[in-house]
Amino acid sequence: MNTFGKNLRVTTFGESHGVAIGGVIDGFPSGFKINFEELQKEIDKRSPGSSQLVSQRKESDKPEFLSGLTEDGITLGSPIGFIIRNSDHRSTDYSEVAHKYRPNHADYTYDLKYGLRDYRGGGRASARETANWVVAGALAYQWLQQFGIIISAELTGAGNIDFSQKLSMDLAEKPSEALSLELPDEIKEKISEEISSAKNSGDSVGGTVTCLIQNVPGGIGNPVFDKLHADIAKTMMSINAAKGFEYGIGFSASRLRGSEVLDIFTSLDKKVVTKTNYSGGIQGGISNGMPIYFNVAFKPTPTIMRNVETINDEYDSTVLQMKGRHDPCVAVRAVPVVKALAALVMADFLL
Amino acid sequence: MNTFGKNLRVTTFGESHGVAIGGVIDGFPSGFKINFEELQKEIDKRSPGSSQLVSQRKESDKPEFLSGLTEDGITLGSPIGFIIRNSDHRSTDYSEVAHKYRPNHADYTYDLKYGLRDYRGGGRASARETANWVVAGALAYQWLQQFGIIISAELTGAGNIDFSQKLSMDLAEKPSEALSLELPDEIKEKISEEISSAKNSGDSVGGTVTCLIQNVPGGIGNPVFDKLHADIAKTMMSINAAKGFEYGIGFSASRLRGSEVLDIFTSLDKKVVTKTNYSGGIQGGISNGMPIYFNVAFKPTPTIMRNVETINDEYDSTVLQMKGRHDPCVAVRAVPVVKALAALVMADFLL
Amino acid sequence: MNTFGKNLRVTTFGESHGVAIGGVIDGFPSGFKINFEELQKEIDKRSPGSSQLVSQRKESDKPEFLSGLTEDGITLGSPIGFIIRNSDHRSTDYSEVAHKYRPNHADYTYDLKYGLRDYRGGGRASARETANWVVAGALAYQWLQQFGIIISAELTGAGNIDFSQKLSMDLAEKPSEALSLELPDEIKEKISEEISSAKNSGDSVGGTVTCLIQNVPGGIGNPVFDKLHADIAKTMMSINAAKGFEYGIGFSASRLRGSEVLDIFTSLDKKVVTKTNYSGGIQGGISNGMPIYFNVAFKPTPTIMRNVETINDEYDSTVLQMKGRHDPCVAVRAVPVVKALAALVMADFLL
Amino acid sequence: MNTFGKNLRVTTFGESHGVAIGGVIDGFPSGFKINFEELQKEIDKRSPGSSQLVSQRKESDKPEFLSGLTEDGITLGSPIGFIIRNSDHRSTDYSEVAHKYRPNHADYTYDLKYGLRDYRGGGRASARETANWVVAGALAYQWLQQFGIIISAELTGAGNIDFSQKLSMDLAEKPSEALSLELPDEIKEKISEEISSAKNSGDSVGGTVTCLIQNVPGGIGNPVFDKLHADIAKTMMSINAAKGFEYGIGFSASRLRGSEVLDIFTSLDKKVVTKTNYSGGIQGGISNGMPIYFNVAFKPTPTIMRNVETINDEYDSTVLQMKGRHDPCVAVRAVPVVKALAALVMADFLL
Repeated sequence: MNTFGKNLRVTTFGESHGVAIGGVIDGFPSGFKINFEELQKEIDKRSPGSSQLVSQRKESDKPEFLSGLTEDGITLGSPIGFIIRNSDHRSTDYSEVAHKYRPNHADYTYDLKYGLRDYRGGGRASARETANWVVAGALAYQWLQQFGIIISAELTGAGNIDFSQKLSMDLAEKPSEALSLELPDEIKEKISEEISSAKNSGDSVGGTVTCLIQNVPGGIGNPVFDKLHADIAKTMMSINAAKGFEYGIGFSASRLRGSEVLDIFTSLDKKVVTKTNYSGGIQGGISNGMPIYFNVAFKPTPTIMRNVETINDEYDSTVLQMKGRHDPCVAVRAVPVVKALAALVMADFLL
Repeated sequence: MNTFGKNLRVTTFGESHGVAIGGVIDGFPSGFKINFEELQKEIDKRSPGSSQLVSQRKESDKPEFLSGLTEDGITLGSPIGFIIRNSDHRSTDYSEVAHKYRPNHADYTYDLKYGLRDYRGGGRASARETANWVVAGALAYQWLQQFGIIISAELTGAGNIDFSQKLSMDLAEKPSEALSLELPDEIKEKISEEISSAKNSGDSVGGTVTCLIQNVPGGIGNPVFDKLHADIAKTMMSINAAKGFEYGIGFSASRLRGSEVLDIFTSLDKKVVTKTNYSGGIQGGISNGMPIYFNVAFKPTPTIMRNVETINDEYDSTVLQMKGRHDPCVAVRAVPVVKALAALVMADFLL
Repeated sequence: MNTFGKNLRVTTFGESHGVAIGGVIDGFPSGFKINFEELQKEIDKRSPGSSQLVSQRKESDKPEFLSGLTEDGITLGSPIGFIIRNSDHRSTDYSEVAHKYRPNHADYTYDLKYGLRDYRGGGRASARETANWVVAGALAYQWLQQFGIIISAELTGAGNIDFSQKLSMDLAEKPSEALSLELPDEIKEKISEEISSAKNSGDSVGGTVTCLIQNVPGGIGNPVFDKLHADIAKTMMSINAAKGFEYGIGFSASRLRGSEVLDIFTSLDKKVVTKTNYSGGIQGGISNGMPIYFNVAFKPTPTIMRNVETINDEYDSTVLQMKGRHDPCVAVRAVPVVKALAALVMADFLL
Repeated sequence: MNTFGKNLRVTTFGESHGVAIGGVIDGFPSGFKINFEELQKEIDKRSPGSSQLVSQRKESDKPEFLSGLTEDGITLGSPIGFIIRNSDHRSTDYSEVAHKYRPNHADYTYDLKYGLRDYRGGGRASARETANWVVAGALAYQWLQQFGIIISAELTGAGNIDFSQKLSMDLAEKPSEALSLELPDEIKEKISEEISSAKNSGDSVGGTVTCLIQNVPGGIGNPVFDKLHADIAKTMMSINAAKGFEYGIGFSASRLRGSEVLDIFTSLDKKVVTKTNYSGGIQGGISNGMPIYFNVAFKPTPTIMRNVETINDEYDSTVLQMKGRHDPCVAVRAVPVVKALAALVMADFLL
């Protein structure tokens, strides 16, 4: 339940405001030299404080590696254990949330399941857990890059501005062009405005992340229960606040006719490609060698700067005053998480 | 790879036009009396020939149970083995598809992965496999009904007519009313027209299925990697032709503000409910006792009555003439499959 | 719980006296041509009636293959489903065992776990299940033989005659000679006499099976929790009536000094071997390229031709009259089962 | 591969002479108060320096708990992460073993599998890993004691002195008496002498550990592939140096007749017991409520104070001078490990 993957298995632990979070990466191939600088860059992208659009809480996320590596940073094939210490959480005042259930958070459901919960910062339900995933995913991505695989992820929508549908259709219809998730400047600006506007009104806003995986060899995946896109779907839906997933042209396909979305096979020098890529690089659960792309929808952060009605853990009515430094749009920080998890899924299938 | 589930495990086998398909249901509780009549009803809903809107191929899907039951049909707790014989497939002429890759089908990717494939009717990639799922899912649903759990599924969109978004928003905003997936007659008619129109022009059309699960107790699911909705997502994305999944208000949540979608807790006689249900009954990966609902998007069947360019298995250009009796809208036949798989996931979590 | 293996997964079903037993073999490589004649030979070795020393009940064990194969018997890579019908079981009178618990059988523990049981012939607890294992194991062994791997198994002890310890020590000390499990004629005869003597007095007797696996490449296995010998141990202990397992010189090693059992490394033309093989071909859970050998101890069949005290399912004292045709020494029929399971474990690790 | 268990899952990491070892305990029930003093006692039993008979290397094994607990030491239901730092390993000189393969160690097989290895103290193959198991097992045992389950383990044989067979037969024949693994003083003394004698001659000696589990409720286990004793066997064979496993009267059963080992059922006040317990508390893979007992055979430590021939990692002949402080009998330190793993298996089945 806290382990992800079959061949490359990542087991994680840690409450948001406990001593440390961390994980064990099991099944990583031996003899691979880790690039720790590149790793830290990926971790820093996820960190609060990395942009105006995210919460300003300061964390110093430096993983300490405990095993699985030689002194030169070469993998031994044995499990890679790592921890990230949490910092300065003792001073915070949790009295407001210790016994009140925050709406759309996991407070109530954790109490139902476990009979108690760590109310400090959301405990295990906090997005802090995703720092573990970024560590593991960044290592997986370093390994994948050896085979030429490129993964990119972008925020492609926030609130009323949603460019993800247009982008997906472009990826479907022009697969032979140089592919990029780079948005037009105008769209980028509008997305920033949406987020700022939500922030300024003490509110939050949802968003969409698009991910593109290039140079995946054909033949990866399974035909029935562990279809490549089904495993990607499950993985992405594991991210905090994820509400929807679609691959290829996704929901748009449900509104079109068969004749409009046929990806015609053709070959050039015995290399098979499809003229269009509505399928999103996967057919029958198995990669066909074309680019894989998908969208993940994120709900707005439920923590907003307002007083809301709720109940306490004795089921009596009360009012909750939410406060603190929080992300106006969780989808912003989900971008490196989507990328990291995409790397983990792909590495798991390729191993 | 051909096994689904952790506590209730369904392992399936069978090519579309082989001797038989079948499965093994392992972990089903002992001492439960199977209602075989009800089971057959569910199977018949999936069968071709069950409606004007699906393909007219005649199959007689009568599962033969081989083990796991007393002579009175009471489960022993041991694995329930069953088979469904395939019928009259020998006469068909497969010469057109034996060496040509059908676009958007799994022909090419199977060849990539396995080096050979059963081209008769799509082999293992055929939707015939879903008959196994309906058998297992119907048994699971009989077991779930003991606890008052009700699962319903409906076709809520086809082509240009998409009622799923409206319906989801209704389910979110009026959770205290009697919930139903019943569509207005006018919408139903328009959906039928979309499908007929596609059929009449030798084309096919995509569609959306909505599923509603009521009376799930709170506290079901896992907080991190095996979130309830993540497992539902993976399961639904395993259905042939599925391209997208969303739960609660799904992609709509990415376009809204936090203040617009807060599900406020309240309690009545110590029973906790939320005033709205934008969350779709799951918070932090764990059920909160409110109704669970989700949409699955299906692409249009790739088999259409037209000639299309393609390549053969030597990667040379050719023309494929697709023919035969095929469903104009696979989403129609996916309805009982969505319901069956929803039952399997829920039973797996409840066991 | 009814699935064996990680990469090559065998899921089985079937009660001894139900309609059929059978299984699903998932993960078998594609493109392999099955030799059905060889398969049948292995199955026949396990069958009752194959020797004077086993029960004379007549079964016709002909597996029917339902999927996963082309019409020419070439594997597709998809799951191989098979069934073996049970025959003429309706006439038998089970009144004596329907409500009385047979000592050392699983009757009482099944009732504890499941609340009911199939008392006809032992239901799922019957050694009939091992017919499924032999089918799957024989296919696995055909595949392993491609790589030169040779597996043999022999009955090396029964009752007072136990040659297994001597044989193990020979295998340890002369690993460079041509290895064989062939027993001296005199020992074979004495073992036969032990079994006949038990049979003639309406009694049964325990026995030991030795297994030898040659030509396993080095580097197979895992270092910590899924050690090669640990998985072999679990597998062998899954056989009905198994009470003990030892590999290499096993329990004898507990009685010796370190200096007496060191397997000294040496190399010839860059091929590494050890001068002795007390380790049994596995060091630190991973094969070292030397022959693997192990012993499995089987208890005597609990069914003997005597009246015994027992209790019924209302926990009242009663007398049970055991009768029917039963094996005087289950270890005899366990020989092909040990071989089949050894093939399954090795194939699982090599895949 | 570094994860143990299904419901209670322990994932471990750490090389013997790396930064730290540690693990993640996932699935531990919430709301349980850990007794840290009791825990430390169990850990100390395994530590070197705990007796004259074990190596005198000083380690300070104090686990640091990082997650899964409230500040009061109550389990949250979330994964419990812990680490144990390794100490003062930098000064050691590993030049003798860096490129030479120690006989009967995992040096050669690790190189085969991984292409490199951590030669400092054996890396992952070191028995240091068992400190992780003792931490997890001690927590599991605290939980099991709530249900009255008692687990004990003893060294019952070393070299020529083997009391395990006599003890097993006593446990089989007098199950209604107060059971104990306490050896007669005379035997204890002789065992000590065997070990001292081996130590004094720079040699090592094998041994046997007997384990007794009392008050296990009936009905625990599985009937086919995950039989209770098969899982115990695999678990015990995972311990470093284990060569054999037997439960109940084990190998002795292979030498006896059916009539000699029937465990006759009887009942007293509707409580079912057997008059004897040759079966060792398990029938058909499922516990019957009687005491469970088993023996594990351990080989002598391969590290002895002598020069031995071997090869280096270029496969050239060389001589290895083994030195350092090592256990003359690993079975001594295996006693708390057997107990800890028995607790983990039982907790896994009971959860």
